[in-house]
Amino acid sequence: MNYEEKTLTSEKVFEGKIIDLRIETVELPDGKTAYRELVDHPGGVGVLAVLPDGRIPLVRQYRKPIEDYTWEIPAGKLDKGEEPIVCGKRELEEETGYKVEELISLGYIYPSPGFVNEVTHMFFAKDLSQGEVHPDEDEFLDVKSFTVDEVRNMILSNEINDAKTVAAFLKCEAMKLF
Amino acid sequence: MNYEEKTLTSEKVFEGKIIDLRIETVELPDGKTAYRELVDHPGGVGVLAVLPDGRIPLVRQYRKPIEDYTWEIPAGKLDKGEEPIVCGKRELEEETGYKVEELISLGYIYPSPGFVNEVTHMFFAKDLSQGEVHPDEDEFLDVKSFTVDEVRNMILSNEINDAKTVAAFLKCEAMKLF
Repeated sequence: MNYEEKTLTSEKVFEGKIIDLRIETVELPDGKTAYRELVDHPGGVGVLAVLPDGRIPLVRQYRKPIEDYTWEIPAGKLDKGEEPIVCGKRELEEETGYKVEELISLGYIYPSPGFVNEVTHMFFAKDLSQGEVHPDEDEFLDVKSFTVDEVRNMILSNEINDAKTVAAFLKCEAMKLF
Repeated sequence: MNYEEKTLTSEKVFEGKIIDLRIETVELPDGKTAYRELVDHPGGVGVLAVLPDGRIPLVRQYRKPIEDYTWEIPAGKLDKGEEPIVCGKRELEEETGYKVEELISLGYIYPSPGFVNEVTHMFFAKDLSQGEVHPDEDEFLDVKSFTVDEVRNMILSNEINDAKTVAAFLKCEAMKLF
């Protein structure tokens, strides 16, 4: 069935540094009208890396929206027009100090397609070499590395609860990359 | 390390039917000030159900923010003050017509903790009985059931790309629930 929603009116109600917000009225498949709140987000990239010792570096960060700390794979937002693979290499080095030549795609996820167009590209990295840590100016984070079993247990116990980190790790397992 | 960000100023710039938007200035661990765009979202619930024939019902829906269709586990937003388990049972029946007595927790994910406080609770359901389909008025969707192998392949080929659906299915596999 064709359930596309045709935009009838669109109003940008907020234009931010990172996100924009639009209110739209759309025509539903039955001809009725519905109201939609839509967030525009630049999208991002997360990299699950395996160090020479088999451990996976995770980033511990305070996330203001949830007022809590998370453990996440190294990740960052896409700059305008930036290729996901370039962003992934950049963020991995910025946050962990590891460089990588090649990234293997783990696909992408829509974190919350009901209200935001954000897409998160995920990559797998191995054969890392030493680079230079240089986090963004307003970014404060710790990096700690865990074994594959430790990460799996942190996911199953919900200590890891960041969507891209859960998806990237479990996709690596399903793809038998470990 | 303590990386908490203390709120210095907070301004609600949008109050919507589903989401609100706040702009905050925060104090960083080094004493500097940073700007944050924060979305308030009610959170939601997704239910991965296994039918008596072993198939998993997925919902095909047009998602306006990404201007595309997705395959997702039955899901919905939390009503104010609603228990996730109550929401999960309600949404499963509304969208698929199946009732369930008991839901098994698959934990929760933060879809995008860098900008939104949304939390998505995930559950596993089996031993379903026939109920009544009654989707929301502005919700148009198809339900189709797939085998476990089909769902895994759809995740690995990225035909399934909704974060909670990827996380819930792969957590079920990791927890050996199939």
